[in-house]
Amino acid sequence: MWLGKVVGTVVAPTKNESLVGNKLLVVQPLNLDGMNTISLQVAVDTVGAGNSDTVLVSTGSSARRVMNNDNSAVDAAIVGIVENIDLEGISKAQYWVQKG
Amino acid sequence: MWLGKVVGTVVAPTKNESLVGNKLLVVQPLNLDGMNTISLQVAVDTVGAGNSDTVLVSTGSSARRVMNNDNSAVDAAIVGIVENIDLEGISKAQYWVQKG
Amino acid sequence: MWLGKVVGTVVAPTKNESLVGNKLLVVQPLNLDGMNTISLQVAVDTVGAGNSDTVLVSTGSSARRVMNNDNSAVDAAIVGIVENIDLEGISKAQYWVQKG
Amino acid sequence: MWLGKVVGTVVAPTKNESLVGNKLLVVQPLNLDGMNTISLQVAVDTVGAGNSDTVLVSTGSSARRVMNNDNSAVDAAIVGIVENIDLEGISKAQYWVQKG
Amino acid sequence: MWLGKVVGTVVAPTKNESLVGNKLLVVQPLNLDGMNTISLQVAVDTVGAGNSDTVLVSTGSSARRVMNNDNSAVDAAIVGIVENIDLEGISKAQYWVQKG
Repeated sequence: MWLGKVVGTVVAPTKNESLVGNKLLVVQPLNLDGMNTISLQVAVDTVGAGNSDTVLVSTGSSARRVMNNDNSAVDAAIVGIVENIDLEGISKAQYWVQKG
Repeated sequence: MWLGKVVGTVVAPTKNESLVGNKLLVVQPLNLDGMNTISLQVAVDTVGAGNSDTVLVSTGSSARRVMNNDNSAVDAAIVGIVENIDLEGISKAQYWVQKG
Repeated sequence: MWLGKVVGTVVAPTKNESLVGNKLLVVQPLNLDGMNTISLQVAVDTVGAGNSDTVLVSTGSSARRVMNNDNSAVDAAIVGIVENIDLEGISKAQYWVQKG
Repeated sequence: MWLGKVVGTVVAPTKNESLVGNKLLVVQPLNLDGMNTISLQVAVDTVGAGNSDTVLVSTGSSARRVMNNDNSAVDAAIVGIVENIDLEGISKAQYWVQKG
Repeated sequence: MWLGKVVGTVVAPTKNESLVGNKLLVVQPLNLDGMNTISLQVAVDTVGAGNSDTVLVSTGSSARRVMNNDNSAVDAAIVGIVENIDLEGISKAQYWVQKG
């Protein structure tokens, strides 16, 4: 699983039926320096995450299993909302989970 | 899932039978700056996507499941056509979904 | 799936039984500029591909499914021989599929 | 599988039920020079690992299988605690497994 | 599958039961220039490979299938020992398979 920050929402009226009714969030991966990368991924929300949340993302077949639908198109799912990251006391971890 | 822009089509008369009758589109991944990368991927279209569309791509076994064929060679499928990406109001998101 | 060019063959007399009798080709991934990368992958041929062919490679469990063997060690298979890549008329696409 | 060093813990009160009761550790991948990268991953502990341990991480569906739960969200699991890495006698391998 | 060179062994007394009795080898990926990368991976040996061998590595669920254990933690397995890589006659391929 990887850590990321929710930075937006995807609007896609034409999509696979397994995605209908799910929130498609844009998530930016975080690295150990707490600096954002320019990469981005789209993950389905399963825990009520929203903009600026630091989240835990599961990928691949494990993400599909979370959806309880064997034919789901989902290959990335937000499976946790991160409250804190305890990096042996390094303060930048606190930075990550600040809002906005 | 990742976001990309359809930039072309692959013509491959000799191919695995599970690919016959499917549209093989070349998709260029997009990053958070809205800048295109030089990487490219080939995905099977499942939603009627075409050139210059911004699309949502599912990968791995989840892409195969979308094809409803357990022995499909597909490991990447276009599962959504993106109308808009709402990046906390950042205008470059608009740029991505403009045609051509 | 990704696009690549066949650049060689692997000779491995000692190998998993599921690989015996299969052609193990070295494939160099291509990017959008038509420039070769220094990365390389080994894929099992399933469509009669040979040296200098531009090919379509499927990966992961989908590649294994193509082999019709649940216990196959294959995680990458050549599933198409590319005749042309139509990149909105960009001529470099033609370059890719030239022989030699 | 890849090698990494445990550098922290993730606190995520809101999470998928399959993650409840599991220790979510932040693991920093190691490379051949023994230098840490800035990338980081989150893996579920299954062997009693803790801060500063050098660990072996399994990913994807194999990590899920280790959890003995077909619907687990886990896509990365710590499956070994590394005592030593014998790199043809290169001393930097020793460096990796030192505590703290 | 990818090509690599065996550069070491991992000693991990505390590990998942599916790994007990297997040789855990450190493998350094090779690229088209024959130059080693600084990345490294750990793969279970299934073909009698040893230090300095050039090997073929299978990953993901296909590696697990090779182990004949549905609950194996293995996501990377050495499935072939490479005797030669015929890169259209390029001599550097010979370099890769030299011992030591």
